[in-house]
Amino acid sequence: MMLLTPGPVTTRPEVRAAMACDIAPWDTDFTQIYASVRERLRVLAGGIEGAHVGFALQGCGHFAMEAALRTFVPRGGKVLIPETGQYAERMARLTAETGRLAALLPVRTNERVDPEAVAAALRADPSISHVGLVYSETSSGVVHDVAAVGAAARACGRRTLIDAISAFGALPVDMAAMPEADAVIFTSNKCLEALPGLGFAVARVDRLRACAGNAESWCMDYADMYAAALESGWGAFRFTPPAQVLNAVRVALDLLDAEGGPRARLARYTKNMRTLYDGVRSLGLAPCLPVSEQGPIVMNVHTPADPGWSLQAYVNALKGRGVLISNFHCTEFPSMRIGAIGALTAADMERAVAAMGAALGDVSCARAAA
Amino acid sequence: MMLLTPGPVTTRPEVRAAMACDIAPWDTDFTQIYASVRERLRVLAGGIEGAHVGFALQGCGHFAMEAALRTFVPRGGKVLIPETGQYAERMARLTAETGRLAALLPVRTNERVDPEAVAAALRADPSISHVGLVYSETSSGVVHDVAAVGAAARACGRRTLIDAISAFGALPVDMAAMPEADAVIFTSNKCLEALPGLGFAVARVDRLRACAGNAESWCMDYADMYAAALESGWGAFRFTPPAQVLNAVRVALDLLDAEGGPRARLARYTKNMRTLYDGVRSLGLAPCLPVSEQGPIVMNVHTPADPGWSLQAYVNALKGRGVLISNFHCTEFPSMRIGAIGALTAADMERAVAAMGAALGDVSCARAAA
Repeated sequence: MMLLTPGPVTTRPEVRAAMACDIAPWDTDFTQIYASVRERLRVLAGGIEGAHVGFALQGCGHFAMEAALRTFVPRGGKVLIPETGQYAERMARLTAETGRLAALLPVRTNERVDPEAVAAALRADPSISHVGLVYSETSSGVVHDVAAVGAAARACGRRTLIDAISAFGALPVDMAAMPEADAVIFTSNKCLEALPGLGFAVARVDRLRACAGNAESWCMDYADMYAAALESGWGAFRFTPPAQVLNAVRVALDLLDAEGGPRARLARYTKNMRTLYDGVRSLGLAPCLPVSEQGPIVMNVHTPADPGWSLQAYVNALKGRGVLISNFHCTEFPSMRIGAIGALTAADMERAVAAMGAALGDVSCARAAA
Repeated sequence: MMLLTPGPVTTRPEVRAAMACDIAPWDTDFTQIYASVRERLRVLAGGIEGAHVGFALQGCGHFAMEAALRTFVPRGGKVLIPETGQYAERMARLTAETGRLAALLPVRTNERVDPEAVAAALRADPSISHVGLVYSETSSGVVHDVAAVGAAARACGRRTLIDAISAFGALPVDMAAMPEADAVIFTSNKCLEALPGLGFAVARVDRLRACAGNAESWCMDYADMYAAALESGWGAFRFTPPAQVLNAVRVALDLLDAEGGPRARLARYTKNMRTLYDGVRSLGLAPCLPVSEQGPIVMNVHTPADPGWSLQAYVNALKGRGVLISNFHCTEFPSMRIGAIGALTAADMERAVAAMGAALGDVSCARAAA
């Protein structure tokens, strides 16, 4: 089965095989693996040795983002969140439920966040300490300019938290060039091409130290995690981790290196997306974004203008042909979301497009017969 | 390698194999697996159909416990926590960090919690709404009487939260007989004999409904999880789960059924522990608990009275002989902790005891040679 969901993704057999083992997470063999993964993630994020640190949190991207908001923004603090789509709305909900304030900055549908608008909003409200930005907005497929938005925040003396959940591993991240970024957040199961179960952060050490006591949660406190598990030299997780997932990440990082790193992976995904985009159009379907705005991670496609259309029926038909896409949509109008990421090539995308075309036929035949 | 840690445990190959696959967590095949696991866990917990519900939270036992405290105890609420050991202390820290109050009830070392003392503490402080009890205290090995403590709480008109993390799957849980229990908390990687990555709760539906809005966290809110993911009929996780771990739990539940359920599993663990306990004594080592107080999950053993003793050196030597135990101890004095749980039999325990004896020789030879 080919997973064309924008994470969890199709993984390589070597990565999956690394899940099928028993591991004692406090064993020194495992803490060495964890240390090595942390260091490799710091380097991938462009972090500075000694100034940035990588670590993992049990759970998923939402957990890793909530922990970042709790740790770096004190209760009552305010975060400016450009309304890029559903994942920005989720960040706003995470912010509000933890007793922080979310100030939403309108963003025109399918356009990139305007750094000037961010700067104006920050100048207008000195109580905003952070900008929370979604790098690759999974609900729209648009990739935002984290460097330019970060520069605007920096010029205004504010800090940033970057949701790189569907970006990290392919789109460039350079923490050294983003001193305003407290943390970049990502997960195991998107462009890193491993399995789900862990969120990750690469964060500034000075900010982790300065933010002790903010979190109002023992579990979701990066400052405690840094002090108790890393700075102490203990080097293990504080609580039982999904060690098998970390082991799979280790193998996935080897494969990322072998591929040529994030730059090569981005090139592959870009080619995947171009194949998908052109292929979808060749089927008579309409992508939701103009090609100039279409990011390489996920695309939305308008559903056929057919009153009998059922997304679940189409998903089932396509699954019968070996391709799995999401059975929900993230746009205000009916659409299909199709991921271009995971251990797949342009040739796989051509096969996927052929299956999509055949599945269109399946559902229209089924309806004709009904 | 035989894992004699008290979770993560040694698993069966069929369970590990269920980890090595790609899964789309919103796919209807997976939501059916999740529905089936939820229902089987409710039945295992003795929950009443319609009145209790089982569900999973990404993460580990600490996460599942923090979510229970957040959901069922409002900010400023007070929880009475019998000081059974390190896991009770951890529950108290989880409570305090979320802005709830932890009232500690002293418990004599290595003794069971006295239900009369619980009742007296509750009568003395009407502001206490809940008793938070560790069922099997992993730091001491003592199993506490949840039914008797629950009855004391019920008689005082209070509620309970049960940490059954190292108990569930082997020690009996009967939610139907514990109407005072808001939730029983456990994980995938202890007596259920699957891999780590998920916490679980079986909880009262009426309390989940009544407690909406308490959590001050979107991620760690069982009330939202129930409303958004289960009551709505959607049936999926709210956020990306470690789907492979749930798939492994599915297989592990099949194996639990095939074994004869928790009663048969408890009998196996009890036999494992007896073999370990007698074996350790035959090596000239002293268990920390009298046999009358020793629970079936984990034992602590006094280290040899040897000024040159190094736990890590011993753990390394034992690992070289195929047995892995924890490289830290949970008692105030030096000890070793040895688990009796996982996919292991009394014959395995005999082999483990032989390896422990040989490893004692290894480290004393190494010291003599140094």
